Amino acid sequence: MPATKHWTFEDFEPGQEFVLGAKHVTEEEVIAFATQFDPQPFHLDHAAAEKSIFGKLAASGWHTCSMMMRVVVDNLLSHSTSLGSPGVDEVRWIKPVYPGDTLTVSYYTKSVRASQSKPDRGVVVSIWKAVNQHGDLVATVEGMGMFGRRA
Amino acid sequence: MPATKHWTFEDFEPGQEFVLGAKHVTEEEVIAFATQFDPQPFHLDHAAAEKSIFGKLAASGWHTCSMMMRVVVDNLLSHSTSLGSPGVDEVRWIKPVYPGDTLTVSYYTKSVRASQSKPDRGVVVSIWKAVNQHGDLVATVEGMGMFGRRA
Repeated sequence: MPATKHWTFEDFEPGQEFVLGAKHVTEEEVIAFATQFDPQPFHLDHAAAEKSIFGKLAASGWHTCSMMMRVVVDNLLSHSTSLGSPGVDEVRWIKPVYPGDTLTVSYYTKSVRASQSKPDRGVVVSIWKAVNQHGDLVATVEGMGMFGRRA
Repeated sequence: MPATKHWTFEDFEPGQEFVLGAKHVTEEEVIAFATQFDPQPFHLDHAAAEKSIFGKLAASGWHTCSMMMRVVVDNLLSHSTSLGSPGVDEVRWIKPVYPGDTLTVSYYTKSVRASQSKPDRGVVVSIWKAVNQHGDLVATVEGMGMFGRRA
């Protein structure tokens, strides 16, 4: 359980996987995010969404990533030597995320690499998965995170 | 200039590149986004940020992506047959984004692929670039977008 200790680079081991936490998605949040960042009709308006490939009002993919990030921060990064990230790869929006859904976010450590040039840190490649209340995998993010090493 | 016509899948050609628009980044927005989605100290607090690798208060990378998305929606997707996206690849946060920055977002068409199974649509792979007021490339996103074809 990540939150029970302060994680440093050395604590990450390829193959480890844990559930971090969950996020309930509200219609108010979906519309607020879309209004600010992704004002496409299927993220804003019920009638337009019904005519779209989503079938009903669906969250922006960037909102889904941001909600996943919040779960990762609260349950892992805030209890770690996180130094930020140079980027992410393979963000996949696999199924729509709807208001009323509850997303459970898990963290899988794919690989670790100590920095050659900066001996005080290393990069962890992780795969985050979000599963909804029906057990459907709705989104994945393969991310790089920099973490400080133990002194 | 994308906004001057209604873009369909057929309008995208590999190699085309255009500036879409710009977004000024405010401290209020940086802190509001971080509070909701990425409450790491270097995105929230000036003193903590000064001691971090960012040097001063910096926007969450997910906020940067979301601001880029808004520019892409306003200047291209809202004037197109956009059907959403299955995901993005190679998001790179190359330099910090600070309050007060102005990000200019450009769009480069990398490849196009008509759907084999659904003849009414195709996928466009694009690379979005954000450059700040100093001319520094701060972020890139390689994204997939589905677009409807002309009838």
